[in-house]
Amino acid sequence: MKTKASLIALVSVCMVRLCVAQSKEPANDWKPSTANIVGQEFPRISSERRAQFRIKAPEAKDVSVNIGKPLTVTKSDDGVWTITTSPLDVGFHFYRVLIDGANVADPASEIFCGGGGGGLSSGIEVPTGEDFYELKDVPHGEVRERRYFSKTTQSWRRIFVYTPPSYEQKTSARFPVLYLQHGGGEDERGWPVQGRVCEIMDNLIAEKKAQPMIIVMERGYAQKPGEQPVPMRPPQQRTNAAPSGPPRDFSRMFSTFGDVVINDLIPMIDKTYRTKADREHRAMAGLSMGGMQTRNIAMAHLDTFSHIGIFSGGSISTNDISGAGAFKKKIKLVFVSYGSRELEGGRGGFGGDPKANIEALKAAGINSYFYVSPGTAHEWHTWRRSLHEFAPLLFKN
Amino acid sequence: MKTKASLIALVSVCMVRLCVAQSKEPANDWKPSTANIVGQEFPRISSERRAQFRIKAPEAKDVSVNIGKPLTVTKSDDGVWTITTSPLDVGFHFYRVLIDGANVADPASEIFCGGGGGGLSSGIEVPTGEDFYELKDVPHGEVRERRYFSKTTQSWRRIFVYTPPSYEQKTSARFPVLYLQHGGGEDERGWPVQGRVCEIMDNLIAEKKAQPMIIVMERGYAQKPGEQPVPMRPPQQRTNAAPSGPPRDFSRMFSTFGDVVINDLIPMIDKTYRTKADREHRAMAGLSMGGMQTRNIAMAHLDTFSHIGIFSGGSISTNDISGAGAFKKKIKLVFVSYGSRELEGGRGGFGGDPKANIEALKAAGINSYFYVSPGTAHEWHTWRRSLHEFAPLLFKN
Repeated sequence: MKTKASLIALVSVCMVRLCVAQSKEPANDWKPSTANIVGQEFPRISSERRAQFRIKAPEAKDVSVNIGKPLTVTKSDDGVWTITTSPLDVGFHFYRVLIDGANVADPASEIFCGGGGGGLSSGIEVPTGEDFYELKDVPHGEVRERRYFSKTTQSWRRIFVYTPPSYEQKTSARFPVLYLQHGGGEDERGWPVQGRVCEIMDNLIAEKKAQPMIIVMERGYAQKPGEQPVPMRPPQQRTNAAPSGPPRDFSRMFSTFGDVVINDLIPMIDKTYRTKADREHRAMAGLSMGGMQTRNIAMAHLDTFSHIGIFSGGSISTNDISGAGAFKKKIKLVFVSYGSRELEGGRGGFGGDPKANIEALKAAGINSYFYVSPGTAHEWHTWRRSLHEFAPLLFKN
Repeated sequence: MKTKASLIALVSVCMVRLCVAQSKEPANDWKPSTANIVGQEFPRISSERRAQFRIKAPEAKDVSVNIGKPLTVTKSDDGVWTITTSPLDVGFHFYRVLIDGANVADPASEIFCGGGGGGLSSGIEVPTGEDFYELKDVPHGEVRERRYFSKTTQSWRRIFVYTPPSYEQKTSARFPVLYLQHGGGEDERGWPVQGRVCEIMDNLIAEKKAQPMIIVMERGYAQKPGEQPVPMRPPQQRTNAAPSGPPRDFSRMFSTFGDVVINDLIPMIDKTYRTKADREHRAMAGLSMGGMQTRNIAMAHLDTFSHIGIFSGGSISTNDISGAGAFKKKIKLVFVSYGSRELEGGRGGFGGDPKANIEALKAAGINSYFYVSPGTAHEWHTWRRSLHEFAPLLFKN
């Protein structure tokens, strides 16, 4: 009986394996991730959107990859670990490598600011079948790195500024400005690097789908002299140093950073670049924490901004604008977006259901849009698509 | 006797330790490296120029740092490894961390393109007592990222372009151009990031020590369609992937890259930016491999360039210009530099002693300079100082 049962079990296992093999033989059509360092074959992606990593760590007991998906890990005799994931969502994902308890970046990938817990991470690009964010044969703008002195923080701050292709040619033309913010744990490099702001805008402008505009990308952390620094991430999560500093405190992410934007950044930009320096030609948008900052700063300064974009960072309800006829008169656009995976199972933005909120704003006569990025989560491909949907709606009049 | 000998030995050891302690008690005045990610306390530097690293790797058997100096490594009970170096040279150093045989970057440091074997590395800044490369309260230029299409390579290439503070203000002014190249295993990010080109030039221009100029930083690797890629580094040295590709081949680092510079890059720059588009206002310089490229490309195109800078990359002898009266008439400046550590023990540039070569050029009536950076090796602080010495000599007439 025992033998028979074992035999049946064995046959069952074989059949299951066979079924798996027949229906789910992993595709063997790997291509290197476009986020790799030039010439690196790994990490690579299959048509099934599985990722495969190779880490050389001959003496390690345990190697893994933190990308939020189940993994298969094998080690070869020459000390190379091969790690294969289950299928990933489309688009860009941060990841980190774990080597015997050390949490590090993959030497085969370019480095990106952000990722779980913040700081610098590796990144992988899973093909999307879309090309709105790819480099094309169109006129190209520039991303400019600039330092300026903030009176609010009494310190030098770094910004990136996208200028459209026509900025250098039309040397007396003036342009509207979008202030575009990254998320928590990231910095001013997020939008120009993994956000692909230059490629997205160059393509939209070439297709005449968006107005040529200047885009300013600041660092969403600020403290006045004497204030405790606002940590960009919980230090104990990923640092190799001992935990230090105060617990995470978002409160000044709105107040002090708002002072920087209103009192220092905007006057400097209007002085330095050929802007259309009025509220009608000024927008603010951001993702996640940057969306919350946009909501707080722009709503408190309707004399400064006329267009608002919130990507995966809450929404605006009619309660927020109750009694504010001024809002209806002043605001030209409210845009709210999420990745579909963020909304699955009834999850969604704090401050109420974002879709219902936008419907209510529309009913109140406010020019409002709600966009859902299909099959993406709280990740950069959601925000690339959000910018691609949002930018054409800006500065239309 | 044995006991007595042991006692003497013990006393001797104690005395030696005491001597060491008295004369070399390590300074305990650590300060975080300015190349750290914001908020990271490690790596840190003492006034003796020792560096101390902390790596959290609880399960690792062996952790080390590759920075070319002897180390002391200790591990605490909580799995944090502390690594202290002997005194380092001043300036910027690449480093990588070794965790059980894996060669990775330190999560506590910003990431820099370059380092032993190439690719992306961590970096540490050892204070120099100099401030010519620090961000100061002076008018600031920009570093602009731009893509352009090369007909030679039939591909899009990325460049960085420094524009001086006056470029945006004086919108009809035209500026001379320096083409400035990185070294082998690095890319176009070298000069704007660890090279501090913006800070160095902003400071020199503010002090009226250098002419306002445009600086163009290209990627010094190029292949025509069908050509094998020129590897930026020996792949087997640092990649986690299996070794692949042909052995290192520098030959096309001059020919194909020269075609890119002469036929694609310079015409595009002169069309896109307000340049003084003649040979009198065009210079080329580079470090190491970029110095060799400068020597090859500029010497073959004296109708294009009038100023030449070679940093740690050989020199120019009178043999190179023999019979070339044209050289003497056309070339306005030859500048050659090395770090003093590169010249120690009679080492130095290939192609003959660089100082003797420059003396001979001077004797032949050519405006030539030789600069030695004190106490630095084949590293970025040598090249920061070289740029700081070279730029004031450019475009003086």
